[in-house]
Amino acid sequence: MAKQQKTAITPTREENYPEWYQQVVRAAELAENSDVRGCMVIKPWGYALWENMRTGLDGFFKATGHSNAYFPLFIPLSYLEKEAEHVDGFAKECAVVTHHRLEQGPDGKLHPAGELEEPLIVRPTSETIIGATYAKWVQSYRDLPILINQWANVVRWEMRTRLFLRTAEFLWQEGHTVHETEAEAWEETRKMLEVYKQFAEEYMAMPVLTGEKTAGERFPGAVSTLCIEALMQDRKALQAGTSHFLGQNFAKASGITFQSREGCEEVAWTTSWGVSTRLIGGMIMTHGDDDGMVMPPRLSPSHVVILPIIRNEADRDSILEYCNETAAMIREQSYAGRPVEVVVDARDINAGEKGWGWVKKGIPVRIEIGPRDMESGSVFVARRDKGPKEKYGQSREEFASTISAVLEEMQQGLFERACAFRAENTREIDNWDDFVKFFKEEGGGFALAHWDGTEETENKINDELSVTIRCIPFDCEYGGAGECIVSGKPSKGRVVFAKSY
Amino acid sequence: MAKQQKTAITPTREENYPEWYQQVVRAAELAENSDVRGCMVIKPWGYALWENMRTGLDGFFKATGHSNAYFPLFIPLSYLEKEAEHVDGFAKECAVVTHHRLEQGPDGKLHPAGELEEPLIVRPTSETIIGATYAKWVQSYRDLPILINQWANVVRWEMRTRLFLRTAEFLWQEGHTVHETEAEAWEETRKMLEVYKQFAEEYMAMPVLTGEKTAGERFPGAVSTLCIEALMQDRKALQAGTSHFLGQNFAKASGITFQSREGCEEVAWTTSWGVSTRLIGGMIMTHGDDDGMVMPPRLSPSHVVILPIIRNEADRDSILEYCNETAAMIREQSYAGRPVEVVVDARDINAGEKGWGWVKKGIPVRIEIGPRDMESGSVFVARRDKGPKEKYGQSREEFASTISAVLEEMQQGLFERACAFRAENTREIDNWDDFVKFFKEEGGGFALAHWDGTEETENKINDELSVTIRCIPFDCEYGGAGECIVSGKPSKGRVVFAKSY
Repeated sequence: MAKQQKTAITPTREENYPEWYQQVVRAAELAENSDVRGCMVIKPWGYALWENMRTGLDGFFKATGHSNAYFPLFIPLSYLEKEAEHVDGFAKECAVVTHHRLEQGPDGKLHPAGELEEPLIVRPTSETIIGATYAKWVQSYRDLPILINQWANVVRWEMRTRLFLRTAEFLWQEGHTVHETEAEAWEETRKMLEVYKQFAEEYMAMPVLTGEKTAGERFPGAVSTLCIEALMQDRKALQAGTSHFLGQNFAKASGITFQSREGCEEVAWTTSWGVSTRLIGGMIMTHGDDDGMVMPPRLSPSHVVILPIIRNEADRDSILEYCNETAAMIREQSYAGRPVEVVVDARDINAGEKGWGWVKKGIPVRIEIGPRDMESGSVFVARRDKGPKEKYGQSREEFASTISAVLEEMQQGLFERACAFRAENTREIDNWDDFVKFFKEEGGGFALAHWDGTEETENKINDELSVTIRCIPFDCEYGGAGECIVSGKPSKGRVVFAKSY
Repeated sequence: MAKQQKTAITPTREENYPEWYQQVVRAAELAENSDVRGCMVIKPWGYALWENMRTGLDGFFKATGHSNAYFPLFIPLSYLEKEAEHVDGFAKECAVVTHHRLEQGPDGKLHPAGELEEPLIVRPTSETIIGATYAKWVQSYRDLPILINQWANVVRWEMRTRLFLRTAEFLWQEGHTVHETEAEAWEETRKMLEVYKQFAEEYMAMPVLTGEKTAGERFPGAVSTLCIEALMQDRKALQAGTSHFLGQNFAKASGITFQSREGCEEVAWTTSWGVSTRLIGGMIMTHGDDDGMVMPPRLSPSHVVILPIIRNEADRDSILEYCNETAAMIREQSYAGRPVEVVVDARDINAGEKGWGWVKKGIPVRIEIGPRDMESGSVFVARRDKGPKEKYGQSREEFASTISAVLEEMQQGLFERACAFRAENTREIDNWDDFVKFFKEEGGGFALAHWDGTEETENKINDELSVTIRCIPFDCEYGGAGECIVSGKPSKGRVVFAKSY
């Protein structure tokens, strides 16, 4: 057996992908499990990443005419019940507040006291509580559209959790809009899906497919759920964002009616759409490698780390000064609309450990500066998209003047690599045997195949292979007409199958 | 009786201050009560204000070396109990999660099901849950200091609520830091108080006094609570922010210990500090007038609104074009580090109603543009810090080139006016009769008086006059030594008394 190259993360992706994922999250200091079941602690490096994602998305939301607002954390049980499918969808996994104080019992211990007349549900999503407010705001067609987004925490009591991908509490944004006509609501639903696609591809460097979910995978209470789907490196799909056309279902449930231009009382049309900290999981599984996280430069909390190499205490001050000067030069550059962010890591710890720490965190560029670099006015550069030992010297002026271009090249490179990976692992399949072979023997990926449109066939495939329909592409004749790989019945176009998170 | 000038807000501050406050919050579209007991809906104009406050504060936190992170919403009951005073302080007002799903009962209705082994408390503040995490992070003095802030929602089940000032759920930031030595923790506690003072005065234009709380007013579990206190226009004080020196209390409770430089196991020193959406209430009550909200320009969601005056439909397009051009000219200017924000309000509603709407929202500058202004290349300007009918014409070039200076003048003007108000309503008082008269007959304010340092005297004053000690100024010999106005016993310096929110 050939000697294995040592990697910073054990196990490697090949050896054990789920465990590799957990180890990357830990080693990159993105998040950790808390002592509270299913709730995570998002650590500073992970939270700074989320802040950058939030800023990017928020820019898109504002550019498309939305404002932010904030609605209550709690939803009265009776509100959740207003939409029958909706409450069914969330009843099995919600945190219920039943009391509003603690009191010492006869055992000397504190117990819940002050029982509420009506239990409150910690929001798993806010359609019903926001709908109740909108019903008061909307009187006339002049009050429409309402285009509001909320950045918030939500709770879904998941039994099996995994950092970022599925946690009991997570952070997200939820847009909730109200429209005068069905067409406008549909336009909004599609527009926000397009925003998600653009954000995923341009900021996260994560290519996504767009399409509609099947009836069985819809958001509870929606008329239609659109989604973006990405392919992870283990060839499983990740649903990365959804945009729901809610029709008049929630408007009826909440009583959002308005006087139309013709003077009639009409029921409004609503949408909702959201992405969450789950996207961070998607980014890790799209770009991470056996040395840890790889940050897309546009979202990375910092772009460049400067590592002073101090072998002799006498050099410390002059090297640090040179490092700080270099940092200041680099900060004068800008990338993607913000100054290039630089950290000088002057911690007094083992240099190898320090350098590897930044590799694992996925910072795009590391530069080392020792006494000889200082003398020659140069820096020693390593890029996260190259091998960890592939380093090159450069004058610091040249480094500073090219850093923006290098970051953009890395951003594009990550996107292209991810697109190539997806292309390699997407296949048109025309019969059941090949379909089974694809998922059972060939590692799977996105299978584009014909489906007869029935829930029966969908379930059969899921039962036999744990493969689901990720989305029905918008062009319903995608790939042309054909025959269902299971039933042989006619199909108007291919749909996208995959195993998924 | 003289004819009263009509105001946009009824009642006026003079007539009924608490009701005036509610009406301003409503008329300015900052927030409203939700259907969930004690929880508010923060509307887009109010939330945009909060976003600007958050950005401003966050800049200070980062400049003082802090990072943001995120910790769980839920606190296991046993964690809250770890610090005895702490749990006592919050037991009477906390939301308790006892179940994790809903199930249909025999009555066909949904009921809480899946009882949790241990109740979870929706965080009223996060010392204990964050402490549990820090205990894992801190091993050695090399891991210190930890300087982390969290932006989050918290819940305190208040029985009597008032928008922004006291709500069951509110938004805030909570800083939680860990230090090697007592001195460093004290330095941090004072530094963050200074940050709050600077933010309150420079951004909110709200002057504040700083000092230490008496033992009775301390944060539950703290060794010392420092605070900023502002004087509202009804001459009542508002506690606007607190910074707590927690000593080793919470570190002991959570087990935050470390190996010291000398190799011994030591208990760490911690601090916590927070401000909340309550600050918005403070801003309303500091600057608002009988026509509504008055936004300090540095925090105002928008700086300038352009109101097109269209009397003739034929003019509509050309006027709107001129307005948009003017907006673009103004947006090229910057104020306090961001572009001047302009709204063109082209809604087709009554012009008077529209203009008054913006007065009530407190936007710093309104400009009207009609056909004649367009012809002469001018705009018609009204400033929110002048009377609502005080308007002047100006060329639009002149307007654009002076807007930054005007905004800064308004910002300073608001601060100076608030300082003058506070000075007028602050009095040194040396005997009980004058003290009673000040609060009972003369409208009250900040009374600087001598106190013997006992809880007995503090309680007596509170019982008789509902007046509390807002803070003990840092210079403990503030105003020189004297005699307690109640007991006649010696006092080293004056303390600050007031009625309060």
